[in-house]
Amino acid sequence: MDERTIQTPQERRIDPARVLALSDGLFAIILTLLVLDIQVPDLAQGQSLVETVREIKPSFVAFLISFAVVAIAWAGHRDLFGFIRSTDRTLIWLNFLYLLPLCLLPFGASLLAQDERGLVGLRLYGLLLLAIDLTRLMIWVYATGRPTLLVAPIEQRARRVGIVMAIVGAIAYALAIAIAAALPTASLLMYAVIPALYFVGVAVNWDSERANRGTA
Amino acid sequence: MDERTIQTPQERRIDPARVLALSDGLFAIILTLLVLDIQVPDLAQGQSLVETVREIKPSFVAFLISFAVVAIAWAGHRDLFGFIRSTDRTLIWLNFLYLLPLCLLPFGASLLAQDERGLVGLRLYGLLLLAIDLTRLMIWVYATGRPTLLVAPIEQRARRVGIVMAIVGAIAYALAIAIAAALPTASLLMYAVIPALYFVGVAVNWDSERANRGTA
Amino acid sequence: MDERTIQTPQERRIDPARVLALSDGLFAIILTLLVLDIQVPDLAQGQSLVETVREIKPSFVAFLISFAVVAIAWAGHRDLFGFIRSTDRTLIWLNFLYLLPLCLLPFGASLLAQDERGLVGLRLYGLLLLAIDLTRLMIWVYATGRPTLLVAPIEQRARRVGIVMAIVGAIAYALAIAIAAALPTASLLMYAVIPALYFVGVAVNWDSERANRGTA
Amino acid sequence: MDERTIQTPQERRIDPARVLALSDGLFAIILTLLVLDIQVPDLAQGQSLVETVREIKPSFVAFLISFAVVAIAWAGHRDLFGFIRSTDRTLIWLNFLYLLPLCLLPFGASLLAQDERGLVGLRLYGLLLLAIDLTRLMIWVYATGRPTLLVAPIEQRARRVGIVMAIVGAIAYALAIAIAAALPTASLLMYAVIPALYFVGVAVNWDSERANRGTA
Repeated sequence: MDERTIQTPQERRIDPARVLALSDGLFAIILTLLVLDIQVPDLAQGQSLVETVREIKPSFVAFLISFAVVAIAWAGHRDLFGFIRSTDRTLIWLNFLYLLPLCLLPFGASLLAQDERGLVGLRLYGLLLLAIDLTRLMIWVYATGRPTLLVAPIEQRARRVGIVMAIVGAIAYALAIAIAAALPTASLLMYAVIPALYFVGVAVNWDSERANRGTA
Repeated sequence: MDERTIQTPQERRIDPARVLALSDGLFAIILTLLVLDIQVPDLAQGQSLVETVREIKPSFVAFLISFAVVAIAWAGHRDLFGFIRSTDRTLIWLNFLYLLPLCLLPFGASLLAQDERGLVGLRLYGLLLLAIDLTRLMIWVYATGRPTLLVAPIEQRARRVGIVMAIVGAIAYALAIAIAAALPTASLLMYAVIPALYFVGVAVNWDSERANRGTA
Repeated sequence: MDERTIQTPQERRIDPARVLALSDGLFAIILTLLVLDIQVPDLAQGQSLVETVREIKPSFVAFLISFAVVAIAWAGHRDLFGFIRSTDRTLIWLNFLYLLPLCLLPFGASLLAQDERGLVGLRLYGLLLLAIDLTRLMIWVYATGRPTLLVAPIEQRARRVGIVMAIVGAIAYALAIAIAAALPTASLLMYAVIPALYFVGVAVNWDSERANRGTA
Repeated sequence: MDERTIQTPQERRIDPARVLALSDGLFAIILTLLVLDIQVPDLAQGQSLVETVREIKPSFVAFLISFAVVAIAWAGHRDLFGFIRSTDRTLIWLNFLYLLPLCLLPFGASLLAQDERGLVGLRLYGLLLLAIDLTRLMIWVYATGRPTLLVAPIEQRARRVGIVMAIVGAIAYALAIAIAAALPTASLLMYAVIPALYFVGVAVNWDSERANRGTA
């Protein structure tokens, strides 16, 4: 592409294009690998559709929750990098720190798939969700504090709301991990619902910020 | 890329570039993962080429049908997003809803590969094709009803033709699922043929629309 | 990207960008999946490095040949689409026809990995290489015969050289398949060498064409 | 994209866009495939979280080291191609030579995961790291010696520093391989630390070069 050739070396160093290409590739592969954790039943014994569905249910629930978690993480990553115009070395490494627990999610899903109410699976899965939340917070704090990295300056209020939301999410995950032994079903439900709530919060924050600026 | 740096935050929020990057990645991985469902025969017993081909035939048929389904789905997705200039949050989530049954297709193919005329495999595979058809319809209805999302306004006739075609497809899939018990081979054949017919319909609709506008 | 928003619907329909994104994704995944066919030895019995290398040798040879085949196919695909400025529906489907045997290559490699001189594995692997050669020829004939699809008109001589090279390759693969029973090692060697020779031919043809035009 | 259509055939031949798309795809897939090497414990026996963590520890350590190696390799690849404006045929093949040991890393990780202090696993893993280092050096020497391939001329001092650093890295890897029998833990530690040191060196070199030029 000719626009590449007219970039200066310095412009290339801060161009987030390859960071986004790598991240999108990772998200796409994780979403697709999750299907490998669904237990393929042996159909030779002539089960009915209902029996088959019952057999694959635990791994299918783990698949659906993980698919939603990764989809929401992707949408959040797209929102986050919608604010970011330049990358520096620290941002690249914070991004890898964020991608690390995401890459571990198919492993977490395969533990959850063994027994959707098992304590060890629930705890490890919750730790991964907590790590995704906290590393995303690190990118948010780092990037929004450096105006040169941003497309446009971000309001202090919007910045603080983003931080508070991530901390609320972290507390909710910690709670879900804590109650996993006593209330496994509630814990699993929280894993499914918290990412969605967090995402709703981002949308609200985003819309209110847009309203503040008076831009459509 | 410098054109990124001159986009406003608002332009970035509606830019479909990352949605397409994620979707293309997903399509590429699904197409490639399908090969893992082909049963690798143990060649140690010195079978002939003909015996080996007979052994891998069920899983190979499931691979070929699934490859065609995903290829046609990709071409349809490319056509669909050829009309779309901007994305909003709803469109992003409808797109994930569409990608969900696509991601499950390797699982459906592995069921079909066990026994290409087995009832449970045929029914679950048909449900996936039905879900792909209906979620694509949802994107079509949503996007074509919002001129601000489109590259150019779409004629009401073309919009209705798209809706009718998706519904005809859905009815055909429902029929194929219904006859799977009595006529498994016919059901399998319909799974292979319906996507292609649907795609032919899109092409005709597209060409006629182009003719109406008088553009080459 | 803003340049997308200024494309007309017609320009979007012929834009090869997503065709290349899908193809590059496929090539990358196939190159990476090949590693899964290398047999992981059980190191618990305390083998030496030499014994381990001997144990993984057949699957490692299959990996290396397949890696080279896919790398050369990618370079050839990049050369091919370097001539192509627009895509139409037929070109998209010819491209899928070309990607189909490529997607099957990890399967062929896993057969070859079982026994690098086994007849069935050699024959099926050769058929895949033959299919890649012939489908690439189809794209070449189709695209070079339609000047509106090309970046610049192609000389008849260059076009014919491309056709002859693909046919020579096809004959060489057919020969390698034919001698697989009598001379398995020679057959395997031909699979490794033919793609490289073909690629050398492309480079020569390309350079001579460039020389003819007098452009550097 | 319209900028493609205005590229001349010659501009397309030297455009690194598809080389980067393929490479980013490969890096993303390798990072994600590594998770498949983590041994999924059977949770049915009701182990505690601590026991489970102990069980997965060797494969988890192999995962973490490999994730860091690939992430650092990607950052190094991005730095390297930040200097490169055009590709030629040799550069494309050197890039494949570099991607080859990277694609083998999940295999190396699965050997290391069996026994993180096993001699064969440590030696093969070290050979892969050495190959990544040396092939990267080949790209560096080739590209920096050809000003027409570069975005901007590179200073002789910066070029030499890059060469020295790669050679120091190669010596360190050779040492780590040599001591694997006597000091397996030290060897493993070196595999984890050397890539990071190398990367720090690149950053220092880069910053000092930037300082020399007086550009921010």
